[in-house]
Amino acid sequence: MTVRIGIIGAGNMGADHASTLQRFVSGASVTLLADVDGARAAGVAAELGCRSTDDAEALVRDADVDAVLIASHDATHPAFIRACVAAGKPVLCEKPLAPTLDGSAALVADLGADAALVSLGFMRRFDPGYTALRAAIAARTMGAPVLLHSTGRGVSSAPGSTSASSITNSAVHDLDIVPWLLGSPVVEVSWHAPRSATGDTTFQDPQLVLLRTADGVLSTVETFLNARYGYDVRCEVVGESGTASLAEPVRLVQDGALQRASGYAADWRPRFAEAYRLELQAWVDALTRGTASPLASAHDGLVASAVADAVITSMHRGGTTVPVEVPGTAR
Amino acid sequence: MTVRIGIIGAGNMGADHASTLQRFVSGASVTLLADVDGARAAGVAAELGCRSTDDAEALVRDADVDAVLIASHDATHPAFIRACVAAGKPVLCEKPLAPTLDGSAALVADLGADAALVSLGFMRRFDPGYTALRAAIAARTMGAPVLLHSTGRGVSSAPGSTSASSITNSAVHDLDIVPWLLGSPVVEVSWHAPRSATGDTTFQDPQLVLLRTADGVLSTVETFLNARYGYDVRCEVVGESGTASLAEPVRLVQDGALQRASGYAADWRPRFAEAYRLELQAWVDALTRGTASPLASAHDGLVASAVADAVITSMHRGGTTVPVEVPGTAR
Amino acid sequence: MTVRIGIIGAGNMGADHASTLQRFVSGASVTLLADVDGARAAGVAAELGCRSTDDAEALVRDADVDAVLIASHDATHPAFIRACVAAGKPVLCEKPLAPTLDGSAALVADLGADAALVSLGFMRRFDPGYTALRAAIAARTMGAPVLLHSTGRGVSSAPGSTSASSITNSAVHDLDIVPWLLGSPVVEVSWHAPRSATGDTTFQDPQLVLLRTADGVLSTVETFLNARYGYDVRCEVVGESGTASLAEPVRLVQDGALQRASGYAADWRPRFAEAYRLELQAWVDALTRGTASPLASAHDGLVASAVADAVITSMHRGGTTVPVEVPGTAR
Amino acid sequence: MTVRIGIIGAGNMGADHASTLQRFVSGASVTLLADVDGARAAGVAAELGCRSTDDAEALVRDADVDAVLIASHDATHPAFIRACVAAGKPVLCEKPLAPTLDGSAALVADLGADAALVSLGFMRRFDPGYTALRAAIAARTMGAPVLLHSTGRGVSSAPGSTSASSITNSAVHDLDIVPWLLGSPVVEVSWHAPRSATGDTTFQDPQLVLLRTADGVLSTVETFLNARYGYDVRCEVVGESGTASLAEPVRLVQDGALQRASGYAADWRPRFAEAYRLELQAWVDALTRGTASPLASAHDGLVASAVADAVITSMHRGGTTVPVEVPGTAR
Repeated sequence: MTVRIGIIGAGNMGADHASTLQRFVSGASVTLLADVDGARAAGVAAELGCRSTDDAEALVRDADVDAVLIASHDATHPAFIRACVAAGKPVLCEKPLAPTLDGSAALVADLGADAALVSLGFMRRFDPGYTALRAAIAARTMGAPVLLHSTGRGVSSAPGSTSASSITNSAVHDLDIVPWLLGSPVVEVSWHAPRSATGDTTFQDPQLVLLRTADGVLSTVETFLNARYGYDVRCEVVGESGTASLAEPVRLVQDGALQRASGYAADWRPRFAEAYRLELQAWVDALTRGTASPLASAHDGLVASAVADAVITSMHRGGTTVPVEVPGTAR
Repeated sequence: MTVRIGIIGAGNMGADHASTLQRFVSGASVTLLADVDGARAAGVAAELGCRSTDDAEALVRDADVDAVLIASHDATHPAFIRACVAAGKPVLCEKPLAPTLDGSAALVADLGADAALVSLGFMRRFDPGYTALRAAIAARTMGAPVLLHSTGRGVSSAPGSTSASSITNSAVHDLDIVPWLLGSPVVEVSWHAPRSATGDTTFQDPQLVLLRTADGVLSTVETFLNARYGYDVRCEVVGESGTASLAEPVRLVQDGALQRASGYAADWRPRFAEAYRLELQAWVDALTRGTASPLASAHDGLVASAVADAVITSMHRGGTTVPVEVPGTAR
Repeated sequence: MTVRIGIIGAGNMGADHASTLQRFVSGASVTLLADVDGARAAGVAAELGCRSTDDAEALVRDADVDAVLIASHDATHPAFIRACVAAGKPVLCEKPLAPTLDGSAALVADLGADAALVSLGFMRRFDPGYTALRAAIAARTMGAPVLLHSTGRGVSSAPGSTSASSITNSAVHDLDIVPWLLGSPVVEVSWHAPRSATGDTTFQDPQLVLLRTADGVLSTVETFLNARYGYDVRCEVVGESGTASLAEPVRLVQDGALQRASGYAADWRPRFAEAYRLELQAWVDALTRGTASPLASAHDGLVASAVADAVITSMHRGGTTVPVEVPGTAR
Repeated sequence: MTVRIGIIGAGNMGADHASTLQRFVSGASVTLLADVDGARAAGVAAELGCRSTDDAEALVRDADVDAVLIASHDATHPAFIRACVAAGKPVLCEKPLAPTLDGSAALVADLGADAALVSLGFMRRFDPGYTALRAAIAARTMGAPVLLHSTGRGVSSAPGSTSASSITNSAVHDLDIVPWLLGSPVVEVSWHAPRSATGDTTFQDPQLVLLRTADGVLSTVETFLNARYGYDVRCEVVGESGTASLAEPVRLVQDGALQRASGYAADWRPRFAEAYRLELQAWVDALTRGTASPLASAHDGLVASAVADAVITSMHRGGTTVPVEVPGTAR
């Protein structure tokens, strides 16, 4: 059986997913691609050998679409998720669930039991480095964790980035992965920053966030979108008797010009290609077998949004400590 | 379109290939599995959800088999390849092409133009480390190569290993990959060895082979099957202005007990899982598109056998330098 | 000309300094060793081939002592420094200058111009790693710095350690080296901590301190005295276009038991042996040449104490941000 | 007591030794410096604050010279050693003992018991990496050794270098250190080479030498004087259950321009500065204490010359295996 997938959004992310699904995922076939820019959809579809449309709603209803992947603009996520659920079709939505915490909360409340149809694209949970790190933590190879350092640096930020979007679009991966690694929710946060490396007062870059999880671990999250030197994601867990850290994935080491050097990726695509492939394979396998999705859930997306919201509150309050409150959850 | 694949051999290698094809290769489906031990075939087939048989010849003729993967005992390779070609079916045979150089030569001579149906399983050619290394060599990032060091160490050897089988079964991967990396054939070899780490006079381990390629590069090939500490494959190319080396693929680094440590695989499976997946995907893609196989060819297998044969001749002649002669090729 | 040195304190630190001076420093000779425990002094002196005494004041006045090194209990530092200065003898005092900030301030105020006779043992300033890192920062190889991460972990804490002593005795090295690296003073600090890895409520371990320097850089200082796995000092500077980090000094890499491993020191001695040797050589060279001491000054010690004091204030105020005020300095 | 040292030779090597002795060695003082180029001697002496001469013989007899360090042209070594011994003065001679094997043999024969006065400058024996590696081998942390890989690469060769001088001047360090590490003499050798990276038929570069030691270990020695990318010395010992390798001494790691990089030295000075310092300190300590020199002996120099001679014989015989014969030694 082949799962026939429709993809909404033919930008970088949508095109990358489409290519991975078509070329490297067993049991899947991309049958239809939608983008508000119909020509862009048609261009990508031609490479994949599938149909295209500029009507995402039609894609959701299409008879040759068994499941939907949403990689369109953030603002469109809630409506497309609702449409998929209404059509009874499983949907994998790129983060965020919704542009605002309130929007995410309303969506999760409305979904009810249908939330089981929805998966969220926190792909780091499928990266072999992070899964090995989580297993090491669970096995307590470093004793019980006390500190965690999560670092995300990139070459340059997208146009229009702000201090807040840096949290909700980039750091949100750390805000999801830290509690997932530790197996403990974030309960309070504080926001800190050096002078900004951008010349822009609305965009503080880098930023440093402290997270406290229910298990008492203190985590630092450094986010630096314009670090220039490369796309570099690091994570170290410090426990009572040792540490465990992600190793930078490197293929070659080269000597030349009085240096020994290895390369960094220029963006997330090579760094997380394997994570995306394994995430999509896991999604397709669950669809094929009729089992529950092993991907992040809509509720996981809501929780990450709540943490991001608390970070932004701390940012606006001069770095004071702010508790995390997940709407609809009694603490 | 899905390529329906029959696999001959349900041992470690066959089962591993079957699982990879079924779980991780787009456009492929394992439909039939054969093993002389019918119960073993049935056991693996049950996990995969495919049919099984103890009759490999029947598998080759089966109407639901579009292409065949041979992972049975070395001695059976030539006959099964001939059967596949006779049936007009594409075949991917694990190395070696044949147990002897004469057998390989006779097979290649007999195949003639049908050799286009045959691919050989030198999977290192699809390992992302080796492909990056080959690209670096081709781009002359280290200047023109002068030396190459290829090292293959394992935890323990298979029962019945001998000095010669160490060359034909293990070092043969180096004997194929070195000229593939350099883009230049091996023209002469010599064999050397320290005292043996085994207690067995028929099994020298480790061994050190020197290869001279037509481009004048001198390569060392170290093979140590019982190195105990881990499965460790290394390759360094030294050029006129720098070097390039494979990096050990590592996911985690761990601190504990006064040490910083990363892990080694215990055998080839984790180390080359990605290479096997990409090799099988490339094979299936070529079958789907009707294009020429990008895998190693039958002739590549013959050439590697000829180099291995020269190494064993040097071994028997006390380490003297021996020219490589590929049967059917005028030098 | 040989500088004849008297050492006060024959514990680990004093004995280590005595041995380094006697064995590895050109132009120096240890002539007299004092300890309140005269037998301990005699034992160390016998190994060195020098005289010993239980009277430190007599050592300061001794005709065969040109300069004094103080490695006795912290509480004794101010009185011995005053005695040396009164005798007109150069003195190198291990940190801290005094056990309290007030004591340090009073001492510096009293010293006046005689402070030129006093050097303080912040040996990291002579470690080849830190000096290379400082040079890289000054050369802006990573662009202008924005973040700095300083990490100090040890195997186990000394008996009687407390949350505050962890700052004044251990983290104080970071509190000195961070502004020295950046060339900018610390202006405000905040203190943070996870659950404690000790079972002791008076001793929080690990601790995380944030430092803001006048240049706008935000630094994290992690101090974990009971990290168990090894003595591990790290420092990374993140700039606007790259980073520079200390490399762990390692002599050997060893493969075994499915691991590749390198070792950590069990304590500060092997890690900073070279720093201590170079610091002592620089001190002796300046004495020989009659030039100003290139070591940390009494005022540097006062500044570090003021930063430590602000950290402890933040600790007592639940992690709020506290400005650094150096007594006797108008901001 | 201070050992007063006279140095013959004010070139790079002599000046480096003079500076190390004067600045960093306890218990030593350079009192006189000789060079055939009296102006050069005077220049270096001015920096050191010592006397100079163009008469090396006078230096040997000088009343203010207790011991002599020879760093002059290779051809002058035997005569100066004889002069020192005749004057009853301890002498540390840079390698080689003599330009030819016969010369070395004649010198050692003539020295007789006076050889105890002579030390030879194989400084690698004092490098902390090599001493740690030797200790690891002695402790059998990798089981009994079977293979050893010794690699020496440099940026560019000295003017006038030849295939033979590459062995006698550079590889000779490997030819000494390999048996010293293993604790077993070299018994036979063979010489191999790729096409040369130099355009010069009298100068083959790189070269690859195989050494067999009496313990049955096979060692590879790669020497590449014009490797361009940096001064890079490596050594790996492979044993029956693991390996041990020298770690490249690195102070900083830097990220920038899509690379993570650490530096190589441009020549031997930074790489072996610590080895030279410790060697000189050990020599001076032995002189001070009146104990036997722990440095390489004249006989060690003779043995290394005999191995080098066998390598050159193999070079002239097309790479055949050549036994090592040490003159004056019955095998």
